[in-house]
Amino acid sequence: MSQLRALISAAIDEDLGHGDLTTDATIDGSATGRGEVLAKQDLVVCGHEAAAAVFEEVCRRVGGQVDYQPLIADAESVSASTVIGTVSGSLRSIVIGERVALNLLMKLSGIATHTRRYVDAAGDSGLGVVDTRKTTPGLRALEKYAVRCGGGRNHRHALFDGVMVKDNHITAVGSLTEAVARARGAAHHLVRVEVEVRTLQELDEALATSADVILLDNMDDTMLAAAVAKARAARSVLLEASGNITPERIAAIRDLGLDYASAGGLIHQAVWADLSLKLRQVDR
Amino acid sequence: MSQLRALISAAIDEDLGHGDLTTDATIDGSATGRGEVLAKQDLVVCGHEAAAAVFEEVCRRVGGQVDYQPLIADAESVSASTVIGTVSGSLRSIVIGERVALNLLMKLSGIATHTRRYVDAAGDSGLGVVDTRKTTPGLRALEKYAVRCGGGRNHRHALFDGVMVKDNHITAVGSLTEAVARARGAAHHLVRVEVEVRTLQELDEALATSADVILLDNMDDTMLAAAVAKARAARSVLLEASGNITPERIAAIRDLGLDYASAGGLIHQAVWADLSLKLRQVDR
Amino acid sequence: MSQLRALISAAIDEDLGHGDLTTDATIDGSATGRGEVLAKQDLVVCGHEAAAAVFEEVCRRVGGQVDYQPLIADAESVSASTVIGTVSGSLRSIVIGERVALNLLMKLSGIATHTRRYVDAAGDSGLGVVDTRKTTPGLRALEKYAVRCGGGRNHRHALFDGVMVKDNHITAVGSLTEAVARARGAAHHLVRVEVEVRTLQELDEALATSADVILLDNMDDTMLAAAVAKARAARSVLLEASGNITPERIAAIRDLGLDYASAGGLIHQAVWADLSLKLRQVDR
Amino acid sequence: MSQLRALISAAIDEDLGHGDLTTDATIDGSATGRGEVLAKQDLVVCGHEAAAAVFEEVCRRVGGQVDYQPLIADAESVSASTVIGTVSGSLRSIVIGERVALNLLMKLSGIATHTRRYVDAAGDSGLGVVDTRKTTPGLRALEKYAVRCGGGRNHRHALFDGVMVKDNHITAVGSLTEAVARARGAAHHLVRVEVEVRTLQELDEALATSADVILLDNMDDTMLAAAVAKARAARSVLLEASGNITPERIAAIRDLGLDYASAGGLIHQAVWADLSLKLRQVDR
Amino acid sequence: MSQLRALISAAIDEDLGHGDLTTDATIDGSATGRGEVLAKQDLVVCGHEAAAAVFEEVCRRVGGQVDYQPLIADAESVSASTVIGTVSGSLRSIVIGERVALNLLMKLSGIATHTRRYVDAAGDSGLGVVDTRKTTPGLRALEKYAVRCGGGRNHRHALFDGVMVKDNHITAVGSLTEAVARARGAAHHLVRVEVEVRTLQELDEALATSADVILLDNMDDTMLAAAVAKARAARSVLLEASGNITPERIAAIRDLGLDYASAGGLIHQAVWADLSLKLRQVDR
Amino acid sequence: MSQLRALISAAIDEDLGHGDLTTDATIDGSATGRGEVLAKQDLVVCGHEAAAAVFEEVCRRVGGQVDYQPLIADAESVSASTVIGTVSGSLRSIVIGERVALNLLMKLSGIATHTRRYVDAAGDSGLGVVDTRKTTPGLRALEKYAVRCGGGRNHRHALFDGVMVKDNHITAVGSLTEAVARARGAAHHLVRVEVEVRTLQELDEALATSADVILLDNMDDTMLAAAVAKARAARSVLLEASGNITPERIAAIRDLGLDYASAGGLIHQAVWADLSLKLRQVDR
Repeated sequence: MSQLRALISAAIDEDLGHGDLTTDATIDGSATGRGEVLAKQDLVVCGHEAAAAVFEEVCRRVGGQVDYQPLIADAESVSASTVIGTVSGSLRSIVIGERVALNLLMKLSGIATHTRRYVDAAGDSGLGVVDTRKTTPGLRALEKYAVRCGGGRNHRHALFDGVMVKDNHITAVGSLTEAVARARGAAHHLVRVEVEVRTLQELDEALATSADVILLDNMDDTMLAAAVAKARAARSVLLEASGNITPERIAAIRDLGLDYASAGGLIHQAVWADLSLKLRQVDR
Repeated sequence: MSQLRALISAAIDEDLGHGDLTTDATIDGSATGRGEVLAKQDLVVCGHEAAAAVFEEVCRRVGGQVDYQPLIADAESVSASTVIGTVSGSLRSIVIGERVALNLLMKLSGIATHTRRYVDAAGDSGLGVVDTRKTTPGLRALEKYAVRCGGGRNHRHALFDGVMVKDNHITAVGSLTEAVARARGAAHHLVRVEVEVRTLQELDEALATSADVILLDNMDDTMLAAAVAKARAARSVLLEASGNITPERIAAIRDLGLDYASAGGLIHQAVWADLSLKLRQVDR
Repeated sequence: MSQLRALISAAIDEDLGHGDLTTDATIDGSATGRGEVLAKQDLVVCGHEAAAAVFEEVCRRVGGQVDYQPLIADAESVSASTVIGTVSGSLRSIVIGERVALNLLMKLSGIATHTRRYVDAAGDSGLGVVDTRKTTPGLRALEKYAVRCGGGRNHRHALFDGVMVKDNHITAVGSLTEAVARARGAAHHLVRVEVEVRTLQELDEALATSADVILLDNMDDTMLAAAVAKARAARSVLLEASGNITPERIAAIRDLGLDYASAGGLIHQAVWADLSLKLRQVDR
Repeated sequence: MSQLRALISAAIDEDLGHGDLTTDATIDGSATGRGEVLAKQDLVVCGHEAAAAVFEEVCRRVGGQVDYQPLIADAESVSASTVIGTVSGSLRSIVIGERVALNLLMKLSGIATHTRRYVDAAGDSGLGVVDTRKTTPGLRALEKYAVRCGGGRNHRHALFDGVMVKDNHITAVGSLTEAVARARGAAHHLVRVEVEVRTLQELDEALATSADVILLDNMDDTMLAAAVAKARAARSVLLEASGNITPERIAAIRDLGLDYASAGGLIHQAVWADLSLKLRQVDR
Repeated sequence: MSQLRALISAAIDEDLGHGDLTTDATIDGSATGRGEVLAKQDLVVCGHEAAAAVFEEVCRRVGGQVDYQPLIADAESVSASTVIGTVSGSLRSIVIGERVALNLLMKLSGIATHTRRYVDAAGDSGLGVVDTRKTTPGLRALEKYAVRCGGGRNHRHALFDGVMVKDNHITAVGSLTEAVARARGAAHHLVRVEVEVRTLQELDEALATSADVILLDNMDDTMLAAAVAKARAARSVLLEASGNITPERIAAIRDLGLDYASAGGLIHQAVWADLSLKLRQVDR
Repeated sequence: MSQLRALISAAIDEDLGHGDLTTDATIDGSATGRGEVLAKQDLVVCGHEAAAAVFEEVCRRVGGQVDYQPLIADAESVSASTVIGTVSGSLRSIVIGERVALNLLMKLSGIATHTRRYVDAAGDSGLGVVDTRKTTPGLRALEKYAVRCGGGRNHRHALFDGVMVKDNHITAVGSLTEAVARARGAAHHLVRVEVEVRTLQELDEALATSADVILLDNMDDTMLAAAVAKARAARSVLLEASGNITPERIAAIRDLGLDYASAGGLIHQAVWADLSLKLRQVDR
């Protein structure tokens, strides 16, 4: 992941600062060991690259060598008690890096595991489950990767790689049609334009623009069905539903003919998965 | 918060990058507006300073002035539909900063709200509810602040401001007694030494050291009670319970005479609270 | 411009470092002055925001206040001898910032001026003149802004906000069809997919994919005309020509029915425009 | 080059950001390849170290190993169609790094090639061709290196490593003599003092100071000749001409007895040289 | 040392900047050599890790390999003329890194050597000699490490890892008792609370609080003795003396029964120790 | 000072980190106060700008406003008990910034005070007292400024703004004459070339080169006198003595006719001057 190292370095600054009072005092720099990363619940694995980068950065700072080896690849499901990876080498660096590495593995596996529920609800319907920009500040690339590991798809990454005309933009411009025209006129030709609608009337207006994607926001199932029918009759366009998208809701709307359902909850309603690092061998 | 600005700057780099394709095209730099931050569920408020810093940094980058005003202070409980703050000024900067500001407010209010459940369970028993180092990499100071807003207390911030002798350190040294002695010998005289025990036998050993705090890890209620009794009979020491600490568990152990119960779940089992920003006025 | 300040700060580190030996010795910190930024050739103006940011950053470092005022807006054409902006305030900061501010104004106005030649050649034909990723490392956002000031349009900003399947990707995958399918499958639904073709045969293959845009690379005028005819007959698709695109070439192909012609030369064949800063008043 | 890595890292942030949508989707992480860097015009080679650093940094971020090998050394002249270097290893990293590496090679070879024209015009006259501080913000060290590769010499690097008393300083102080005295008094004894003059009268004043170097600015050939004669008759001093210095002008003044002619145009009138990277072998 | 690399990188930016004019011109990149780091006075060695990091960072920037080998470990005493380390490899990198490496070794060995005088004065009395926060901005971790090498102990690292209620805090709150109570209430349970007193009356007040450590500030020997007696009679508490603590003063108070004497002078009254780097072999 | 803010920010990171445990708990954010910076010994004042920058940065992080006012200007001598500056405003920010501000004032005033002794020894002899590159890593610009406040002059700032051919360079090249020629050939024409000699024989060789400055290193008074005589008889050249330069030595050699005597001890033999900040008023 291109920008992973800067994040990891900041995380280790945060946790290690000028030194680990306990480990520096108790664990000799020459001691070595081997540990296992253990799933303590059923989960979808995610975060091996980040965990490995943590131990690499810790070694760069406090010395020693640590080898992190994934045993179960990212995006695989495992049941509780599975060893998903091993770590061996400098005992001091293993113990210093343990918490940050686990924090990342637990958070990301939690998102992957939670996303899988939405994806399973969509099944083979062809409905794509996508995330949003509701992500933890600083961790977006990692969290969006976790969504992919859970079987979800990503929406645009940020404000700079896709056009999304929302109600605030329409209010500011005064007209949906004009807002879409301005956005299309300014954006380069490799980004698509999406526009948010909340009623069938707005949908009609959106269909008359050059918008490539229409976001059907906060519609109930009945209105969603009507919107899909209307849009499909009108022209070729991608249709995305949003608002209160849960696994249960996905099961309800999966066969309406939508292209995507987007849910911030893939990420912000996910709690961490339970993982631990157990030392299995120590050579002091 | 001392290091808030660097985090906010990174978050805006992440979301805004070289520019907001939609807003730059649709909202004029001279337009102004006023919006409200609305609680969409019952929650404990947290994050106003971070939200204000987001709009300040956005203005520093894209121009204009935005005034963010808290209406309900951090750490206050509100019911759904309460307006907790307002934002007014440059419409472009409001719309560009909205997502990052809300991401912080929602995440932090979620932690404060979740923590409040644990704290309410402890009631007036005197049992302190404390967090752990299981925090989102890069956001620890903010998350620990949210715990305080929820009524919880913080444990040590990081590896550098407290000594915690855990099983891995004991294994590395070969003896709990020796590990505590080494840690005490190396640490400066304004930090206390905590040691983790899992059995009453280990507790006996810990009580014979100079440890200031003993962590009773993963004991059931019966063993916890026995441990408290044994320790209180032996000497003055702070006692902390950890392992599977939930609001329900806290209710069960609150009167055992423990000083602290620590729970990573204050943070990692908290989902985001639901908040939105509604534009109430636009002058274009 | 969102990320302008970091660039300006690096530029001033580079030129000012620990101090300006000459100015610190000769110009008193309390002296003030007023200067004019003068066009020394016909040019299209570009770079006022960058110039203002230079003087702001210099003042942040060495003290004083400087007010930079544009007189002719970015994207306007002016003839030689026109004063395009004024700068007044701390004489020391004006003299220290002069070179970096002019370097940016000269470089950016040079690109805007050069781009205008391509755009004028396209006239009202509807052919969009677009840039490429051949930009000076570190200055892409500014250079792409200069292209817009010259009347050109931007292509994708970078590798992360658009899909462009080029010959190397096709070689790596083994098939154009498969490469487009993989890229479309992986990209989020707000980016379009462009694919590069060099022959009419490849064009046929590209037209059978879901590619949104086809890049007709290095074709002569005759082949370009044939390609446009073939594509327009086949399906709705955006067509872009590239390879040796000069103002003269644009004049030759402007009416072929292409959507875009992309030219790295907008930026990399532009020399700096000639501008200078003349002090008109000094109060010492 | 001491500070090259920070520049390269910023350049890759700019182009790669959170990831290459196309390459990540189409090129497997284990694929390898070999490519050639090809001169598409006659040029003076410059930029191998920068190009190698690009591929190294890309690998640090996305994994894999790439070996960049120069075939023709920096500062050598080659004719069109010469292979000046090769790159082999991880195909993904080669394709991701290609654009930034070429952008640097093309820009720097362009400067070296352009500078060579001025240097050739000076021939064996002993007149040194030197650059100025008119450089692209952020790239000064590289551009000044390119000037050396073209056979030119560098002037001072920045405001901090040489004293140059210009008209603005003289205006601020009120007298050339006093300005030189102040600057000499403040500067450390390993930097020389240069002063700018525009008339023979100013030259007389400058010759009466302790200035080590006199810049004869914007004089025509006749006045230049007179200035050289006057100065040589007066005392030992270095003489530099500036203002409208082109290869043609250098040919005209090369034998006047000047020490240096300085030209911003070495850098800001140079367009990029044409180079491309061709994959010659792919193992997928 | 966890954060050493950032400091070293800044130090090399400061000294090397865009390049070493002399070394680049005179020493070939392929030349190698071997040098010795020589103590030119009796001293306590300190700084090998920092010195090694300097040469590593120089090589990362200008190429080549350098091997730095300590011969006498940090914290050892040596007499003048002892070789304490060797450096071998790229001659260019050795010469470029020499000054920064020596600056660190000389400064840190100076502190270790100076601290040793205080520690020797305390002898086997059990009185701990501790430092303060009076450290060179940016070098605290290194300077506190040097204190440890000299046999001293560290006080809290900074404002964030210990509570120290000083006169200004007491003045701000209005009462020592209340100030201690507030600080104890806010601090996490792994930090201790220290409070400063200047009279026996204040000591009485402090003894009645929960303060873990009492700082006896600026008391003369007689008052110190009285204070120790009073405190020992009252309760278990750590006692620290501060104010004009010199080696001579330590000899005078070492047997009073204090736990610690803190002295900013360990660091700020230490001058650099004399060390030099002598090239013993050059292969050009 | 151009690069002061980055240093101050790092210093506050180091001391304040995520927060001041004591001050946050005891001093209300709305309390205000006024304090005085008091000289506790005779000293030469230095560091007001740095101190002011500390309080500004603290306020940027923790809020509030602080006004720092110098009463006695940098470079002035004061006797003990003089108030050299005042600070007023947010009490919390004053107390948090106090230590870092004083650390800078004490260190810099210490250097200025120590330097004054050397300068006084030189008196009106015309011998310039100059510093060296033996400076604290990261603080060079500040320390060299302190030398100027003490009446000393600066030598080159770093490796990049002056040529100094030392014994290692000569050894590497094999000949003093050749080393000087190479360095002169490579350096730009605004830097001078200095060469180090240790014997009269080497001086002869140096005088035959184009070196602008000759460093007479480690010569005793007799040899220094002979060297000056020989050099003055030969040609115009700047002469600098180095090696064991103390105030006493300066008194001994001040009238030999040297231009400069350089002493690392101006900085590395200076201990901190004694200053304190006393709160004179508190409004809580």
